[in-house]
Amino acid sequence: MIKYPNQMQKVPSSLNLKKRNLKKANLGTEFEDRINNSNNYYLQARIASIFKKPTPVQIVKVDYPARNKARIVEAYYRTPSTTDYNGIYKGYHIDFEAKCCHSTSFSFAHIYKHQIEHLITIDEMGGIAFLIIEFSLYKEIFILPAKNLYARYKLALKDGKKSISHQDFIDEGYLVPTGYAPEIDYLKVVDLLIAKKSEQ
Amino acid sequence: MIKYPNQMQKVPSSLNLKKRNLKKANLGTEFEDRINNSNNYYLQARIASIFKKPTPVQIVKVDYPARNKARIVEAYYRTPSTTDYNGIYKGYHIDFEAKCCHSTSFSFAHIYKHQIEHLITIDEMGGIAFLIIEFSLYKEIFILPAKNLYARYKLALKDGKKSISHQDFIDEGYLVPTGYAPEIDYLKVVDLLIAKKSEQ
Repeated sequence: MIKYPNQMQKVPSSLNLKKRNLKKANLGTEFEDRINNSNNYYLQARIASIFKKPTPVQIVKVDYPARNKARIVEAYYRTPSTTDYNGIYKGYHIDFEAKCCHSTSFSFAHIYKHQIEHLITIDEMGGIAFLIIEFSLYKEIFILPAKNLYARYKLALKDGKKSISHQDFIDEGYLVPTGYAPEIDYLKVVDLLIAKKSEQ
Repeated sequence: MIKYPNQMQKVPSSLNLKKRNLKKANLGTEFEDRINNSNNYYLQARIASIFKKPTPVQIVKVDYPARNKARIVEAYYRTPSTTDYNGIYKGYHIDFEAKCCHSTSFSFAHIYKHQIEHLITIDEMGGIAFLIIEFSLYKEIFILPAKNLYARYKLALKDGKKSISHQDFIDEGYLVPTGYAPEIDYLKVVDLLIAKKSEQ
């Protein structure tokens, strides 16, 4: 059995956040945790190897208070180059961004332009790329393929409608089945995307 | 042209390192920079999309000194879950660890057991996984496929020889061509690994 150290210990990433940010931060983190748990299930079952990338941090100052235990004392969050998750499933390169939406529509303000472009690049290079989104109001999770996300984005630039509604996700996305093991069985939808890709 | 923010600005990652660590750290960083430059070339030429993962950091304390500019004031380096680099090339999932070796042999002390196991998992799942290593003494770069690395590792557990010599890399690895654009043309070797994989 392969052990991956980061999954064995929880990191208190939201420690010392201001109280007003705490609730929102936790909600997003909870969705991430469920995806991470699902990825852990997929890995243990030898179905897929998909990981969340570390949060990019620009390290400015490091202290060495005792015996080589480096302590970072000044650092800043950086803009991520790419997306949250990637890995391999059935030989396909998988790449996706995960978002938790607390409204009735997903605003393009919550995703970087270069992330959308990264997803479409992966799709064009033969990978499976998408946005996975949880609508907390509806308790529903959708996958929107990179192509649809990109088309919506270009439309937004033209007509100024800077968000994708819950109904748009129903019409153009795929509802992700949830359960116990794995909690979020998103590879079921990826199977559909792979089938579509091999038709092309 | 797709712009990826992290490649546009250099991060002074080795700032405030103790002097005795500085030289070694810089040498490793220089090899990483050259791989990153090569990846940037591959991406701009639409050949491949391969990125270095951010350094994993456990964030303990964050301050908000002014106008939402979060400042991390206590954090620690974490053990990476997987490897340094991954991405997509010719539809294949690519995954590798990069090391700079200043000796005549590469010691297993410089790579985690779970990283070797991760590479072999990726290989078994249909990806292209390897160790890329620069021997600074010989000014040579080699790729050692995951299978060979794993076999060497199992041998090391048995016979106690806890390193892979430069000669072993010559015998079992592939010399990586270097030049101007890209500086390290490691996808040439990946082409050979893909050809070998499709024969299987």
